[in-house]
Amino acid sequence: MNGAQALLRTLAGSGVNVCFANPGTSEMHFVAALDTVPEVRGILCLFEGVATGAADGYGRMTGSPAAALLHLGPGLANGLANLHNARRASTPLVTVVGDHASYHKRFDAPLESDIEALAGTVSRWVRRPSRAADVGADAAAAIAAAKTPPGQVATLILPADASWSEGGQPAPPAAVRLPSPVAGETVGSAAVALRSGEPCVILLGGTALRRPGLEAASRLAVASGARLLCETFPARHERGAGIPAVDRLAYLAEFAATQLAGTRHLILAGARAPVSFFAYPGLPSSLVPAGCELHVLAEGTDDVPGALAALADLAAPDAKPAAQQPVSQAIPDAELTAETAALVVGALLPEGAIVCDEANTSGLWLPASTAGAPPHDWLTLTGGAIGQCLPLATGAAVACPGRSVFALEADGSAMYTISALWTHAREQLDITTVIFSNRSYAILGMELDRVGATRGGDAARSLLDLSRPGIDFTALATGMGVPASRAVTTAEFAAQLRHALAEHGPHLIEAAVPPPW
Amino acid sequence: MNGAQALLRTLAGSGVNVCFANPGTSEMHFVAALDTVPEVRGILCLFEGVATGAADGYGRMTGSPAAALLHLGPGLANGLANLHNARRASTPLVTVVGDHASYHKRFDAPLESDIEALAGTVSRWVRRPSRAADVGADAAAAIAAAKTPPGQVATLILPADASWSEGGQPAPPAAVRLPSPVAGETVGSAAVALRSGEPCVILLGGTALRRPGLEAASRLAVASGARLLCETFPARHERGAGIPAVDRLAYLAEFAATQLAGTRHLILAGARAPVSFFAYPGLPSSLVPAGCELHVLAEGTDDVPGALAALADLAAPDAKPAAQQPVSQAIPDAELTAETAALVVGALLPEGAIVCDEANTSGLWLPASTAGAPPHDWLTLTGGAIGQCLPLATGAAVACPGRSVFALEADGSAMYTISALWTHAREQLDITTVIFSNRSYAILGMELDRVGATRGGDAARSLLDLSRPGIDFTALATGMGVPASRAVTTAEFAAQLRHALAEHGPHLIEAAVPPPW
Repeated sequence: MNGAQALLRTLAGSGVNVCFANPGTSEMHFVAALDTVPEVRGILCLFEGVATGAADGYGRMTGSPAAALLHLGPGLANGLANLHNARRASTPLVTVVGDHASYHKRFDAPLESDIEALAGTVSRWVRRPSRAADVGADAAAAIAAAKTPPGQVATLILPADASWSEGGQPAPPAAVRLPSPVAGETVGSAAVALRSGEPCVILLGGTALRRPGLEAASRLAVASGARLLCETFPARHERGAGIPAVDRLAYLAEFAATQLAGTRHLILAGARAPVSFFAYPGLPSSLVPAGCELHVLAEGTDDVPGALAALADLAAPDAKPAAQQPVSQAIPDAELTAETAALVVGALLPEGAIVCDEANTSGLWLPASTAGAPPHDWLTLTGGAIGQCLPLATGAAVACPGRSVFALEADGSAMYTISALWTHAREQLDITTVIFSNRSYAILGMELDRVGATRGGDAARSLLDLSRPGIDFTALATGMGVPASRAVTTAEFAAQLRHALAEHGPHLIEAAVPPPW
Repeated sequence: MNGAQALLRTLAGSGVNVCFANPGTSEMHFVAALDTVPEVRGILCLFEGVATGAADGYGRMTGSPAAALLHLGPGLANGLANLHNARRASTPLVTVVGDHASYHKRFDAPLESDIEALAGTVSRWVRRPSRAADVGADAAAAIAAAKTPPGQVATLILPADASWSEGGQPAPPAAVRLPSPVAGETVGSAAVALRSGEPCVILLGGTALRRPGLEAASRLAVASGARLLCETFPARHERGAGIPAVDRLAYLAEFAATQLAGTRHLILAGARAPVSFFAYPGLPSSLVPAGCELHVLAEGTDDVPGALAALADLAAPDAKPAAQQPVSQAIPDAELTAETAALVVGALLPEGAIVCDEANTSGLWLPASTAGAPPHDWLTLTGGAIGQCLPLATGAAVACPGRSVFALEADGSAMYTISALWTHAREQLDITTVIFSNRSYAILGMELDRVGATRGGDAARSLLDLSRPGIDFTALATGMGVPASRAVTTAEFAAQLRHALAEHGPHLIEAAVPPPW
């Protein structure tokens, strides 16, 4: 058995059954080995950023890693932006980077580069087995590292000779560290804050945003009057009718400051102390109000839902969680805008939907319009590296074949990883992509003003303009095998969305909306 | 004047007049400043890999850097693969990476990452000015670093507060190091080898592949009987009728070994000692034959054409260069294949054309079919990171507005940076893109066999197959504003290519060709 086969058998033995791949010559033995280990499904992506983003979506939905197979340093580089998002999402993910044979590296062949330096920017764990015999054990260690709470990117650099040489040995699953229990004193200290009578906010993040954590947090809010907020860009947020609702902290620092104004105790449950996404001249970076005391109830490596449950049992023993009431959203009788499109999405979102949200400025109205929809999962742009949405939807759909996946995507962001549509078509994934096509980098139009730059003349404005030429996303989609349509009215958008949801396989709808300003 | 304005004025003052840009919030002051420094032309790209590849193409054709404006670590990451190619091409190039304000970094906001680590993998020079007053001088130093022979990637990390703060001062051009002259002893030693009567090969690379270097090398070949070869993937190779011809060292190690068999003296002029592109089980990495003596006449940092001229004056004082004869290629009357398509390209290539070649397996016949075409430049995939061609053509067309640019592109590679077509349309660049659409990663089908992997079963073959679904490149192109057509016969391909060359602006032709095996 060669190293590649040992690697694949180790992946399969540890439950890693999906590999999103964009291979090259140095990965050919890995590719050939796929036929000997049918438990691992290879899914071809036409760009590495699609493979890594898909592995992120898969890991967020299953809590278990997929593998992403990449080709040397440049292949890893192409996948880094979505690995950055995965790192910020604390997604369990195993990256396998094929490299030159070990003895070939000193010759500095054209594709040679510093893979460790690249991997280190996104991976908590990086290892390079030097011989086939070590590949299995190192793969098992990579999987365990990826699963280390709250989840992380682990990178296995696979030299071609370790891959092709005989002597490979599959390894059994390695032990995985469990989330740390939270000390009773920590829980007690948070309870004191909640009972203080002073304004409290519980800021939820990570695994707190699944139903058990949300229900415990809701009990605390009901009993103590504390307000609940969650991190601005959650990796996965369970929400909708029947689940306690929690508003996200605003993206814009001024609005977030308003949300947090007057708070005397900020209790962090799986969330970090809030900071401004960007710096702006004259505005503070930290969003913690002056005079507010921070209480770290549970960090990402901790048992966050357990800590919330313990706190609820202590401080809200008799309270019941407040479930979001269902809201039956009507299709609005008004022109198509980002706002009315959001209302249509809210009206038609099916139970169990998975929403990948990179709608940026066009997405401002989505949280409100979908709050009372049937229960669903909401996945956001955790690391701010745009080009995540279409790949993320790929992985979510592979992870959850029975569920409807929405990719709600801004036109500018869509163009970073547009080839994901081809994988949607090839795998016939149940993904409905909505492109909010406002033909501008609208968020930058706002930011140009907000950072204190002048509104700019023609040269500056031109760099935010996507209208010359306008991009025909229906042509791009059909060119890659995804049925597509363009909606200019709200009624068209609703009809096309109904059609997409009723028919198996991927669809794309280009919603022609005006910029919000 | 703020730091951004000082940066732009310094760029303009040092002759850096083009900035390929994909900006974000942290770059808004730079964008705003474009209106105050009209000497610098901002060109919007929809993905960072397009911006960096375009800057590579620009630098290869002008010998002077363009700037690429990128957004924090993830933006740089998206541009790294083409910066890797630029590094291997020794292209002068200035990367400007906007970063968070210096005081904001400690808050580890979502887009925070290790920019220096990423930049270090492709840049010989990396600097981060800490205040507006330093930005101008650091920009001048970056430009000088980029121009250091033979050319390199210099990265300036621009904190948002250094960009927006007042106190910026433009800096005059910094001194640039010149290529090193080559010592007379070194020239004399090469002359001894040439006069030895033993088989000699002169391996040309870098600046040796422009007309003066080629003419000196040709004189040496004529006088001494030495054979000329050039590196496998030259950054820029002047060739065609009237210019001395030189064959490229083959990509496949076995063929390269055949080309070099029996050589007793290998004289390196701007090229490195040849190595196999990849390692293969049982094959050596070095392509230098046993018993062959290496003579380094000139390295990339040296005055390579000057060394060749000195050697020619010493060892071939009376020889005249042998110019390539013009060849009038006929349009073949045969079905459309990669080979007949290459013959059509050879027949129609206009004088002064710039060919960006990433045709991979479909490009095997291009060097022969175009050898006797009117004089032109040939730009290749220097670093092996695919997705270079469409961006490279963008930059070459911006650099040389009067010339016809060809992007000869494989279908698999095209999908990495397909959004470059939008910039072709927006800037109305005279680029004719030919997609050799064989609907497979054909090169990997060959490599799967060559590395000694089994031919593979369905799972392996499926990962090399681009036919399910087939990609309609005419739809992708027209969706981004580039007129497009599909050629199924040789006559159609010739007619469509003639039309594209006759009409101003970008065009795309999808040539439906079978895989070569």
